[in-house]
Amino acid sequence: MTAKDRLDAVLATLQRAGLDDKRVFTRVYFDMARLEAEAADMRAERGAVLGPLDGAIVSIKDLFDVKGEATLAGGLPFPETEPATSDAAAVAALRDAGAVIIGKTNMTEFAFSGLGLNPHYGTPANARDPERIPGGSSSGAALSVALGLADIAIGSDTGGSIRIPAALNGLVGFKPGQNRISRRGMYPLSFTLDCAGFIASDVDKIKAAYSALADDDALLEPTPLKPRFGVPRGFLFTEMDEHTRVAFEDTVTMLAGAGYAICDLDLDELLREPFRLQQKGTIVGAEAAFIHARHLDNPDRLDPFVLARIRRGQSLDAATYLAIQKERAALLPKLDAAMEGFDVLLLPTVPFIAPKFTDLQGMDNLDRANSLILRNTSVFNFFDLPALSLPTSPTRTPHPVGMMLVGRRFAEMTLISAASAVERTTRRKSN
Amino acid sequence: MTAKDRLDAVLATLQRAGLDDKRVFTRVYFDMARLEAEAADMRAERGAVLGPLDGAIVSIKDLFDVKGEATLAGGLPFPETEPATSDAAAVAALRDAGAVIIGKTNMTEFAFSGLGLNPHYGTPANARDPERIPGGSSSGAALSVALGLADIAIGSDTGGSIRIPAALNGLVGFKPGQNRISRRGMYPLSFTLDCAGFIASDVDKIKAAYSALADDDALLEPTPLKPRFGVPRGFLFTEMDEHTRVAFEDTVTMLAGAGYAICDLDLDELLREPFRLQQKGTIVGAEAAFIHARHLDNPDRLDPFVLARIRRGQSLDAATYLAIQKERAALLPKLDAAMEGFDVLLLPTVPFIAPKFTDLQGMDNLDRANSLILRNTSVFNFFDLPALSLPTSPTRTPHPVGMMLVGRRFAEMTLISAASAVERTTRRKSN
Repeated sequence: MTAKDRLDAVLATLQRAGLDDKRVFTRVYFDMARLEAEAADMRAERGAVLGPLDGAIVSIKDLFDVKGEATLAGGLPFPETEPATSDAAAVAALRDAGAVIIGKTNMTEFAFSGLGLNPHYGTPANARDPERIPGGSSSGAALSVALGLADIAIGSDTGGSIRIPAALNGLVGFKPGQNRISRRGMYPLSFTLDCAGFIASDVDKIKAAYSALADDDALLEPTPLKPRFGVPRGFLFTEMDEHTRVAFEDTVTMLAGAGYAICDLDLDELLREPFRLQQKGTIVGAEAAFIHARHLDNPDRLDPFVLARIRRGQSLDAATYLAIQKERAALLPKLDAAMEGFDVLLLPTVPFIAPKFTDLQGMDNLDRANSLILRNTSVFNFFDLPALSLPTSPTRTPHPVGMMLVGRRFAEMTLISAASAVERTTRRKSN
Repeated sequence: MTAKDRLDAVLATLQRAGLDDKRVFTRVYFDMARLEAEAADMRAERGAVLGPLDGAIVSIKDLFDVKGEATLAGGLPFPETEPATSDAAAVAALRDAGAVIIGKTNMTEFAFSGLGLNPHYGTPANARDPERIPGGSSSGAALSVALGLADIAIGSDTGGSIRIPAALNGLVGFKPGQNRISRRGMYPLSFTLDCAGFIASDVDKIKAAYSALADDDALLEPTPLKPRFGVPRGFLFTEMDEHTRVAFEDTVTMLAGAGYAICDLDLDELLREPFRLQQKGTIVGAEAAFIHARHLDNPDRLDPFVLARIRRGQSLDAATYLAIQKERAALLPKLDAAMEGFDVLLLPTVPFIAPKFTDLQGMDNLDRANSLILRNTSVFNFFDLPALSLPTSPTRTPHPVGMMLVGRRFAEMTLISAASAVERTTRRKSN
């Protein structure tokens, strides 16, 4: 099947869905995507394929610059919003790799929540259960893949924005270390914690996308080895629902049965630090308050939930912000040392299955759910480690549950190779 | 006269002054300085002089680490104060250059004020008038030179701490761009704005010290040219006293008479920006509040005036701090562009002569005097330009008045050479 045929099928689906429905795609590049697909097919005919991304259909989160367009990041246009003067570095790299860029995906306004709700463009339903939330902030990105409208979605992850919707929709979501993929032209939420990453249906596609976009020195293939897994049992395993507990433990048991070394380890002292240090306010809150200061002049145009979070971010004092930054810098090598002897940590991506929309009424419920949905993922933005959410084996629960694999610093390729191994094990069993 | 003889004379003076008088020196290195002087004399005998600093008597501000000693930065010892594990980079470079390090000089607690008062170790009187303040924060540094107890004093300058006491005591004070001299082992006040620099009785000694301590690529000799001077008349010329106005204008007239090109220029729009941006709080305040957070547990051990400044620094919010940092980064190249066509700006270092101690009673008076004493100098920490305070020609006022020469970015050697030219002109006239 040619790229053009695959694209046409996707575009036909989108047209049937109605073009004013912006819950998944806020913008579709009908003409440009067709040209890109035709070019990919011509290269294939000539035997001049650029690589594994050539002809792949890729969606981009609404926060990546596309030349000539205003980058809205899930918000309404503001009077001062200017069109981007060039493509984001990640978008340019995707084009260079031959990707067919199908459109921009919807997201939580400014990427500033993990639930995936958007009052401006509508909230897409969870791919497995329309009564449940999609997770976010990369809601449309996850749905574009889950609905078969993209092979790969590129998104951003500041506290879990890629891994959470991947987990809640039964997909693979990956964020590398912060500096592996250029953030140039990516609308910021927190310059300390933002990073770019991918959602796809399997680890191979994640690897292809990462290989195309990461710096070359990030791509050294690891020596093949059986990864040693550590399970940091402790407070990140609290407040879990039964679905998640069972799915996670089943998968651990399955891996142990397949001969992998899996040890519990106690990292609570270090993993609690991000929460202890940020009681008065968070890095992301303070930086978002700085980045969005101008938007506070138009509070009526903002999602009230996002507005409240930005306002809360204004209250952190600079001295405490600097202290958090300093303590963070000292903590990174400490976790590295504590992980010595392990290749990958295993823990639930999110402690519960996707909540129902009806369970999230009211600001307090939103806040509680948002804090908890981000809890496990955000720890590894704070520690800047590569992390990947993988679907657990769906043996005993109908709901998607994500298992998070956390790699060592600068060991993205080892993490991806471990994720492939886990994926083979769990899929073999469940088929 | 040998280094040893000169040192002995100085040490004898110090011993006469009483060793418990810490107003100028908080610590004197009798034995080590004697050894260093003897070593310098031996090198001189062998014809193996290390350079212009070999055998020079140098004082170091109380905020430079000396291995094995607690660095107090003008404060009282705290229970947690640990001895430094190595010499500060600047101290090590001075030793490498053959300097005789005579002692540590008194300063404003934590370098956090421009007046030079210190309630813990006493405040040295102004060298020219015992009823007047020395200026600070490098009060002891200036006095060590003014009293002939050191050839060169090394200090730090975050908002004017070198240039102010130099100006008020009739000396030369120089701070280069921030990254020219290593700050490793220098007790910080503001990592954004701190820099190391020197006080001496003439520009040649400043040049020798800078040449010994700056990175090599900072030392390219400028093409000889007659410097073009710009006088940024505007708000930095307001609230001046008559002594300062007359001394400054006389010196400008003298330079014009000597054939230098001197033009007025209006830079107010840019030079006002540091004040406009920092109305809610300052970079130095926020960073000092971070650095000294632990000292707030022992408020009784702090100078009440410094304590009040630290507490005020706590109130700046992180979002505004980040906004100031961002705006600052954008302003630096704008001032560079506006200075195109000029080599050096000329303005009064401090808008008034050294105030009398009796004029500074009460916190409000201290605050007002401190803000104004730092006004002109702090602008060029914000813009990170090299700046040097030179004594004006003492023709019509008995009080020392400093003229500040501000150089272009990375043009420290041009600034020093221009300062030499001005110094020759004014001294020729006044002799």
